[in-house]
Amino acid sequence: MTQTGFTIWLTGMSGSGKSSVATATADRLRGRGLAVEVLDSGRIRSQINRSLGFSQEEIEENTLRLAYECAMLNRNNVVAIVGSVSPYRAVRDKAREQIGAFVEVYCRCPMEVLMQRDAKGLYERALKDEVKHMAGVNAPYEEPLKPEVLLNTDQLTVDDAATQIIKTLEVLNRLSRDEGSAYTADEEEMIRQRLENLGYL
Amino acid sequence: MTQTGFTIWLTGMSGSGKSSVATATADRLRGRGLAVEVLDSGRIRSQINRSLGFSQEEIEENTLRLAYECAMLNRNNVVAIVGSVSPYRAVRDKAREQIGAFVEVYCRCPMEVLMQRDAKGLYERALKDEVKHMAGVNAPYEEPLKPEVLLNTDQLTVDDAATQIIKTLEVLNRLSRDEGSAYTADEEEMIRQRLENLGYL
Repeated sequence: MTQTGFTIWLTGMSGSGKSSVATATADRLRGRGLAVEVLDSGRIRSQINRSLGFSQEEIEENTLRLAYECAMLNRNNVVAIVGSVSPYRAVRDKAREQIGAFVEVYCRCPMEVLMQRDAKGLYERALKDEVKHMAGVNAPYEEPLKPEVLLNTDQLTVDDAATQIIKTLEVLNRLSRDEGSAYTADEEEMIRQRLENLGYL
Repeated sequence: MTQTGFTIWLTGMSGSGKSSVATATADRLRGRGLAVEVLDSGRIRSQINRSLGFSQEEIEENTLRLAYECAMLNRNNVVAIVGSVSPYRAVRDKAREQIGAFVEVYCRCPMEVLMQRDAKGLYERALKDEVKHMAGVNAPYEEPLKPEVLLNTDQLTVDDAATQIIKTLEVLNRLSRDEGSAYTADEEEMIRQRLENLGYL
């Protein structure tokens, strides 16, 4: 059996749709018979990294623990899907280096939309500094410069977002092609062109 | 595909042979086509839990992180093999509860043999209190009361130890039977009897 493990790393600000897209993508991949583990950085924080805070150094440690787990899953042919704000570019790049088979997905959403969606009122409270460490408000969020997939999550359905990830994985040869693709040859060519321009092909 | 993931948890004092037995057992299981991950608690400490010390609470946290990783691997049909002193009975029992498909292996070795083998002089130094937190010397080591496998590692070859684990997994129906078993029907019956007496069958 060839190595089928790889990591899909969803980064983006709170509320940008990482978890929904992670779940939908996991369902699609499981439908193709792959073993898939979704790692949610918040859940991991509460379950195994309880002692970690939110300094840059602690965020880095949390991120690299996630990366360690992804690499472990990948070498056992399990696909890992991470949904994590992971606000620091350099730390995401370390995760990429550590994991190798790494596909970065940027869930991009304008702040005004994030604030409209903000059911828990976190952004509102962060703007008043009542909530600390809110990436993009009172803590840094460094946008990816070269994500394999760029999702404008304010304009896409969750289903279309998952399709775009799956298609990119096919073009990257991490997944075998699905015959019943909803993509036209032109759309696929656009993905290929983009990945080539970024140096991933 | 049925659930093939389970965890083999090797406990025992430093130098009792956990790592060698883990490696040999992993080789056998890989030879049967299973995906196997060996988790060494020392390596994990140095790589992902750097901030953890050696208080009882911190040892518990380290152990439960290991258990979390085992459960994650197991539900993706990867066998996890842990080599960890894991000196506290209650903490090992928590790991058992968290993991479910858990087989405890006690690597037992008399202190005088451990001290003879002690290449790094750790026991000698612990006896003088120059090394702290040495389980069985200046920190507790609570022997398992009901391990699925009891290995007297001063009397067994690594190969025989691995065979005993594999045979136990077969009797527990975690592994399908290997036709070319080196075990006689009587030896297998002894394992079955022991597991039945302990309540595992």
